Amino acid sequence: MELGMVGLGRMGGNMAQRLVNAGHRVITYDRDTDAVMASAGFGGEGATSLGDVVSRLAIPRALWIMVPAGQATEDVIDELAQLLSSGDAILDGGNANYKDSMRRGEKLGAQGIDFIDVGTSGGIWGLTEGYSLMVGGDETAIRRLEPIFHALAPAPGKGYSRVGPIGAGHFTKMVHNGVEYGLMQAYAEGFELLAAKEDFNFDLPAIAQTWSHGSVVRSWLLDLAADVLNEDPELESLESYVEDSGEGRWTVQESVDLAVPIPVITMSLQARFRSRQKQPLSGRLLAALRNQFGGHAVRKSG
Amino acid sequence: MELGMVGLGRMGGNMAQRLVNAGHRVITYDRDTDAVMASAGFGGEGATSLGDVVSRLAIPRALWIMVPAGQATEDVIDELAQLLSSGDAILDGGNANYKDSMRRGEKLGAQGIDFIDVGTSGGIWGLTEGYSLMVGGDETAIRRLEPIFHALAPAPGKGYSRVGPIGAGHFTKMVHNGVEYGLMQAYAEGFELLAAKEDFNFDLPAIAQTWSHGSVVRSWLLDLAADVLNEDPELESLESYVEDSGEGRWTVQESVDLAVPIPVITMSLQARFRSRQKQPLSGRLLAALRNQFGGHAVRKSG
Repeated sequence: MELGMVGLGRMGGNMAQRLVNAGHRVITYDRDTDAVMASAGFGGEGATSLGDVVSRLAIPRALWIMVPAGQATEDVIDELAQLLSSGDAILDGGNANYKDSMRRGEKLGAQGIDFIDVGTSGGIWGLTEGYSLMVGGDETAIRRLEPIFHALAPAPGKGYSRVGPIGAGHFTKMVHNGVEYGLMQAYAEGFELLAAKEDFNFDLPAIAQTWSHGSVVRSWLLDLAADVLNEDPELESLESYVEDSGEGRWTVQESVDLAVPIPVITMSLQARFRSRQKQPLSGRLLAALRNQFGGHAVRKSG
Repeated sequence: MELGMVGLGRMGGNMAQRLVNAGHRVITYDRDTDAVMASAGFGGEGATSLGDVVSRLAIPRALWIMVPAGQATEDVIDELAQLLSSGDAILDGGNANYKDSMRRGEKLGAQGIDFIDVGTSGGIWGLTEGYSLMVGGDETAIRRLEPIFHALAPAPGKGYSRVGPIGAGHFTKMVHNGVEYGLMQAYAEGFELLAAKEDFNFDLPAIAQTWSHGSVVRSWLLDLAADVLNEDPELESLESYVEDSGEGRWTVQESVDLAVPIPVITMSLQARFRSRQKQPLSGRLLAALRNQFGGHAVRKSG
């Protein structure tokens, strides 16, 4: 098949390359012309603008968008809506909020353009290992594009499924990332507790490695933990500061909207917020109150 | 090598079989004579008593105990302490509390008997996939028994390591199980949220299967989730009632002793406790208070 790939960052570039390797024709585009030129190295056909991508694709066209969620995605879709015709398809493989995807799908649908939201997981390892694809949208449109999904997935028929109508793909990816927060936090707490047990002077990389083979907690994330601990056993090269990219927040917001308890995922998000505070007010207030009612000692700042 | 295996339940029986398959001589014993007879089927040499096991092993002897933690383990070790001699070794592969293991190790050490605590993970799949072994104890004693560990592990040099002195093995296994609680709860909450989003009518088995290939959350536990959801997509055959076997509690107790925050593991344990309550007092009290101060409606019982 042929496909336009818009956005050649760490995800989009690797996905374009995986598609080329599988024998598909990929027209590549990014605002960064260096990224476009680099894509020629693996056989991508570089384009100079969105209009150039569109003009070089056979009808019905298919364009995969892999740009940051939010305004960047909105802008690309708006511009493409002007350039495409009825029967074409836009696939958003980024981490858009599913409500945005539903709104965009409705708008594009009115023009006869198929919108497909593809929750995409696999990170920078996807080029070699393949991507897990959670696909939302019209069944017929998705079936037409199946060769693309099969090429991106780890193996034909594995790690790819249509999970529902437009929005369902990004909803599923949102929950996936919420689960990811919980898994990461559980491992992090386990290693924290091992490190705190000074009597045993544990070798954390050896334990991660041991757990990675045959244990109930073995996983891909644990393999990554074993790798990073192996390189830097006490992770002294990093600050204990953790960002979030929004999907964990949306997961928690959705649980509030649906009134469904997800305490561990919620707590994992809170732990990230806490990681960014050096001297939170809450700790100062607790110390002050203990001092007031009980005369307990406090630590003076400065 | 040769080894006595005491306790032929789902774990011990499979481990004896895996050792026999690897060419080791295994004297098998269980209070349940049917289990002993069954072990002959895979080449175990059944014994009639602990004394019989001991008498049939070459010196220095090695006995692997795989019985429930607590009194059963205590009783077997006490009896073996009477039967064994200096230079022999007892390995406890069960889920003992690490403090018990340290106490037992000290007592046996005074008699010259090596005590080795082996945190063992792998469940009923270990026979074919191998076990992850977190081994605590004297380095020389452990090195002597390495052929046993290599045979039980998934592959030589993988999934086995000495993690520290006596007690360190069971401490590591305790934390492993705490992490396991957190991982399981994170997946459970994700599927709960997907199921609650009725608009999308999600196919949970398909999503579990999709996540199992190429995604960041792929893991052995997720593979198991995909299996159980595939057999019973809404898990209607089960009550939402979850037991715990003690190691999660010990993990949380240890975090209290060390004053190390592990909110997600703690919350996972609490979620299990909550799962066993049908009409907890706390919910009744909250409803009553809302009614008292705000006149909010309540649901009358009965």
